[in-house]
Amino acid sequence: MIYFDSAATSWPKPPEVWQAMEHFIKEVGASPGRAGHKRTVEANRIVDETRQQLAELFNIDDHKRIIFTLNATDSLNLAIKGLLRPGDHVITSSMEHNSVTRPLYTLQSYGVQVTKVPCDQQGNINLDDIERAFLPNTKAIIMTHASNVTGTIMPVEEVGRLAARHKVYFVMDAAQTAGLLDIDVKKLNISILTFPGHKSLLGPQGTGGIYIKEGVELMTLREGGTGSGSETPTQPDMMPEKYESGTLNAVGIAGLGAGVKYVRRVGLKKIRDHEMNLTKRFLDGAAAIPGMHIYGLSDLTKRVSVVSFRIDGYKAGEVGDRLDKKYDIACRAGLHCAPDAHRTLGTFEEKLVRFSFSYFNTAEEVDFALNALKEIAVARQPEVATLPV
Amino acid sequence: MIYFDSAATSWPKPPEVWQAMEHFIKEVGASPGRAGHKRTVEANRIVDETRQQLAELFNIDDHKRIIFTLNATDSLNLAIKGLLRPGDHVITSSMEHNSVTRPLYTLQSYGVQVTKVPCDQQGNINLDDIERAFLPNTKAIIMTHASNVTGTIMPVEEVGRLAARHKVYFVMDAAQTAGLLDIDVKKLNISILTFPGHKSLLGPQGTGGIYIKEGVELMTLREGGTGSGSETPTQPDMMPEKYESGTLNAVGIAGLGAGVKYVRRVGLKKIRDHEMNLTKRFLDGAAAIPGMHIYGLSDLTKRVSVVSFRIDGYKAGEVGDRLDKKYDIACRAGLHCAPDAHRTLGTFEEKLVRFSFSYFNTAEEVDFALNALKEIAVARQPEVATLPV
Repeated sequence: MIYFDSAATSWPKPPEVWQAMEHFIKEVGASPGRAGHKRTVEANRIVDETRQQLAELFNIDDHKRIIFTLNATDSLNLAIKGLLRPGDHVITSSMEHNSVTRPLYTLQSYGVQVTKVPCDQQGNINLDDIERAFLPNTKAIIMTHASNVTGTIMPVEEVGRLAARHKVYFVMDAAQTAGLLDIDVKKLNISILTFPGHKSLLGPQGTGGIYIKEGVELMTLREGGTGSGSETPTQPDMMPEKYESGTLNAVGIAGLGAGVKYVRRVGLKKIRDHEMNLTKRFLDGAAAIPGMHIYGLSDLTKRVSVVSFRIDGYKAGEVGDRLDKKYDIACRAGLHCAPDAHRTLGTFEEKLVRFSFSYFNTAEEVDFALNALKEIAVARQPEVATLPV
Repeated sequence: MIYFDSAATSWPKPPEVWQAMEHFIKEVGASPGRAGHKRTVEANRIVDETRQQLAELFNIDDHKRIIFTLNATDSLNLAIKGLLRPGDHVITSSMEHNSVTRPLYTLQSYGVQVTKVPCDQQGNINLDDIERAFLPNTKAIIMTHASNVTGTIMPVEEVGRLAARHKVYFVMDAAQTAGLLDIDVKKLNISILTFPGHKSLLGPQGTGGIYIKEGVELMTLREGGTGSGSETPTQPDMMPEKYESGTLNAVGIAGLGAGVKYVRRVGLKKIRDHEMNLTKRFLDGAAAIPGMHIYGLSDLTKRVSVVSFRIDGYKAGEVGDRLDKKYDIACRAGLHCAPDAHRTLGTFEEKLVRFSFSYFNTAEEVDFALNALKEIAVARQPEVATLPV
């Protein structure tokens, strides 16, 4: 099996990820923050170490300002609904995932005003368009770091500067970039960073996180048991307890910690270089396949290893299905939970097939897939009229 | 190490729980509902099977009405905030966990009216008091199935009947009972059932669930990617997608499925009998320890295996600490995230030590703990004045 679906969830995970989980479930077991016994202390240590690893990765001073959540969607709901109030205006892009657009849509019915800055057909945003979108009541810019459809990297450094100049919050969705691109919350002027644990950070599913800059106060979305500060009717004001209610996915967080350590040991540059080599190989090969149309940028410095395409004569689902059944290639065909992005590309109706390459994929796998796609494409090429001799 | 903290999270887990997780993470990996390839189909199958196991356990007709969440707190927030609107009145008890009281407290500031029916010092609720609490705008009764402090089982069958007669919703928090007591959502007239996956259901941390009866419509708290129905700006109306946004903790759900299967194979009766035998042994032994005071009921049919106590001359934390350090017994001293329950018992200031016995504990462990407690208690007994000969 060739796994080209790492933009959904990464696979395989490095062995130390499940080893850390196995250790936790067999030898530790306890619930962090829930008692004072040795097992709890050890569970606390493991969770705290993961928080610390993430803080170092993202250049966050106080690791307690990182909150663990169910997934990046959970993080984004907290960011969006915790921050925005009726009467606020927010700027976002036309390339966002449903985890941004749907919470914003919900808030619109409560009087939050949303401007979606349109991007071009390659997923690029124009900074002047963002500048023009500002209103007196603009409270935040919410934007993905890189599109999960075209792989286009957004100009987040410039967006961060724009946000700082206008004194609004910058919420960055790092679903496709955490553990892959350099994310320095200070350099990017990020107020809130949301990320999944199970994609490029190589942790298991059921892990996600959110960093909330000091001074940024969010309304809590999930109140309940916090282990400490239990006596008050409200959430305790301390971090991370304020936003972390109920039993954490400590076994998953143990795995995530091992994943982040792996990523930091290998290094972002090496991972990125490998993924972009595969992407280049794929883009070069695809250019020679008749009837195959690639979306997104050819400039490798401006994209991540998510590549979407269509093939003449096929519906996207048909190609995905053939790749799976005949060639045992796992990818994702459809709207990728990002209908706005597909509207931007003009592919909302026809949809696209998406490959996403990871550090664990090989050049041989890419070549095999290119051959498969060639066979598929050629099978539906319009017949060339044979000239009479 | 003796683990008496299963009311926080159960440990150990049966080997098949870890095996199911290991299989998922190594061999399946994919995100359920997120593509059409073989790995996704297998992930779907595993998640669906866990849902089916839970549906059979709780006598739920349509297993798709079970939603997976981060934990029971996440489930309760969805139940409470999804159901109640400004102007609604809700009845609850004075024995609830912060996962019920804190979301309700938040809603009070939005105009939801809350009546906490006071319980007696053993955690018993009077049905007449509930009856008297009804108001014309009462929308729901929200109640724990069994207290996480005293182990007292609430009269949920009668409460369910009361709810039906008054045509209000019955939300039951099964944090301490799912996988232990018989829960039949029809027999108990449950509108919404919330449960953790990592306690008596023997799954890993990071798993929880909520059953929403057909006809009960909740406001969603977490909107985002749903894999299917991606084209609409709102959540799709189908179950379980409506309430399940973002990548599920599929590896945890795989483990939970194995946990539920284990519980069903052993049988609730056998598990309950074993736990209550240990509880009886402990209660009998504790009665003979000078200065030791047990809270909760002595009638074993009306309680679960959660036992809280204090020892004269000690703060609860001191006893917990000594049990951990000197005797290697893991338990939980404090407020147990249930300050209301401690106010009800009159132990808010002094706090209590809590033991919780599981199917995996033994009579020898109970005896060892009783000896430890006796040594601790005797060390601070007031000296008996020696009569002059």
